[in-house]
Amino acid sequence: MLNEALSKVKPVNPQWYEVAQKRLDNLTKPLGSLGRLEEFARRLVAIFEDTMPSINKKAVFTFAGDHGVTEEGVSAYPKEVTPQMVFNFLRGGAGINVLARHAGADVIVIDIGVDYDFKDIEGLIHKKVLRGTRNFTKGPAMTREEAIRCIEVGIEIANAYVRKGYRLFATGEMGIGNTTPSSAITAVLTGRPVEEVTGRGTGIGDTALKRKIDAIKRGIEVNRPDPSDPIDVLQKVGGAEIGGIAGLIIGAASNKIPIVVDGFISGAGALIAYKLKPETKDYMFAAHNSQEIGHKVLLETMGLRPILDLDLRLGEGTGAALAMLMIEAGLKIYKEMATFEEAGVSDEIQD
Amino acid sequence: MLNEALSKVKPVNPQWYEVAQKRLDNLTKPLGSLGRLEEFARRLVAIFEDTMPSINKKAVFTFAGDHGVTEEGVSAYPKEVTPQMVFNFLRGGAGINVLARHAGADVIVIDIGVDYDFKDIEGLIHKKVLRGTRNFTKGPAMTREEAIRCIEVGIEIANAYVRKGYRLFATGEMGIGNTTPSSAITAVLTGRPVEEVTGRGTGIGDTALKRKIDAIKRGIEVNRPDPSDPIDVLQKVGGAEIGGIAGLIIGAASNKIPIVVDGFISGAGALIAYKLKPETKDYMFAAHNSQEIGHKVLLETMGLRPILDLDLRLGEGTGAALAMLMIEAGLKIYKEMATFEEAGVSDEIQD
Repeated sequence: MLNEALSKVKPVNPQWYEVAQKRLDNLTKPLGSLGRLEEFARRLVAIFEDTMPSINKKAVFTFAGDHGVTEEGVSAYPKEVTPQMVFNFLRGGAGINVLARHAGADVIVIDIGVDYDFKDIEGLIHKKVLRGTRNFTKGPAMTREEAIRCIEVGIEIANAYVRKGYRLFATGEMGIGNTTPSSAITAVLTGRPVEEVTGRGTGIGDTALKRKIDAIKRGIEVNRPDPSDPIDVLQKVGGAEIGGIAGLIIGAASNKIPIVVDGFISGAGALIAYKLKPETKDYMFAAHNSQEIGHKVLLETMGLRPILDLDLRLGEGTGAALAMLMIEAGLKIYKEMATFEEAGVSDEIQD
Repeated sequence: MLNEALSKVKPVNPQWYEVAQKRLDNLTKPLGSLGRLEEFARRLVAIFEDTMPSINKKAVFTFAGDHGVTEEGVSAYPKEVTPQMVFNFLRGGAGINVLARHAGADVIVIDIGVDYDFKDIEGLIHKKVLRGTRNFTKGPAMTREEAIRCIEVGIEIANAYVRKGYRLFATGEMGIGNTTPSSAITAVLTGRPVEEVTGRGTGIGDTALKRKIDAIKRGIEVNRPDPSDPIDVLQKVGGAEIGGIAGLIIGAASNKIPIVVDGFISGAGALIAYKLKPETKDYMFAAHNSQEIGHKVLLETMGLRPILDLDLRLGEGTGAALAMLMIEAGLKIYKEMATFEEAGVSDEIQD
């Protein structure tokens, strides 16, 4: 299934950018004066291959998973917070619920690897691959089969929500400890020193930061993930939700659906997808510039420019929900503004 | 009226920031992890002096005026475009209409100085102070009385829309040639060289940019505006819509209403307000980082950090409408997120 989805990902055809720009240049505004809003419109036209695309239903997919490496004292919060936050998502009280409502998007919560038995609780998408990853300082976080299964869960969800008529996706996650595997993935896949891509996550102090850097270094030493094999990296030092996000992005791209990539952890998932198939990038929108220091490295590696810069570092998909509002603004400009001719406005440019 | 409004502008009481932060710190997220959204919430609580403020009605005020200095060939478009765009605003086809609808805000269009007789056309706020300013390379753009009247128009409109129940304002403008007076105001009030604060406006080429810089220099030389007297500066090298914006800001601040300041031209109006009464700054939100080069200087002078950075340079209030969406997101986070206690989430921070 992974290979099939990867083979379906095609680069967008740049001729659509010109088609879109032609209309943008006829709208009642100076040429190019709406900057990135025009870029968003061009990209949506090209992704959908439609001169008048519509986004009706939008969703933020929040993948939840636990991390064995929390045993090493790398997070400010106990891992019980992961299932507690899943309940909070289902009740609508978390940050992502508030911001997705604001953006008119649904929140889809997926248990892909939480170390808690949710039974058959309603509202949750049950796709548990494992009950938390294993502590990667002592061996691989997952088996290769589990890692592939996580990616396939993301692809399955993408396919299902495309069938339900959703036309704009966003990534999100919850998992106490998950900046640790994200930094590990970033270090391995970009070749940057662990110190340069490891930040304070939910807000740890200096001592815990030292422990976190040390745990990542040991994890890389013990497991020797192969930088040329993204699945090997995901398996050995990654996390279930990160795999789910990589799969969601691959699934979105294979269905020609634009996908807003949230912050650092989502970015690590995006980098896995990008390394598996660089053309997935054509479907990604980088939501924001996270406060987490490794994020800039991820964005630079993929050549993505973030839409927002609001000092966010919550995750869940919060930045992506806000960025959706900007992307849709671009599409509305493209579709709803009057042309010079319609408005009877002079478009004669003077020298 | 101006002096009365100025005397009613009080600094916000910083104790409200602490009250708001206390609630923010009890919400189910790591401390401070929603960055600037938390800042927006704190500021709204402090401005409204209300622990649970509501923003029901929002408006973008788009002031339109013409500029005699267009005779000098400083703009890419003929000045007939100003009234043409006013008609476009009234029909709902302009960029600001699209983005204000997206943000759930009304667009209020004010003729404060257009060189066109709109008769009693419906939907337009008729507050014409003059039919275009005079060419400031040959003498003052306005009389002192006209400049004060422009500011008072802004104050009157602020008072009227506060009475109508509007709780969040944004500034906007339309006026072919109006980056020229904005650069002149910026140069005089900040002491920076004209070249450093003069950009390409709607998109002029090198020759026109030279003419524009030259016209501004002559305007300053001929009129000798007094940098210690913001009204003198507005009168001699300013514009009607810039005065209206300054007045709207003063009126908003005097009524304890937050106001989103759009881009460069709005920023020039904001600087007039700020120089008349620095406390007006407590009520301002800087919408975005405009592509126009003088804008950064304005923001730095007032110590404002822009919310968005989307390469916009359209004006009308477009950046402000988008920024409203972010400000409201902050307020919704503050009001709608569950607390740790409500959600049963552990807030015990580990070392």
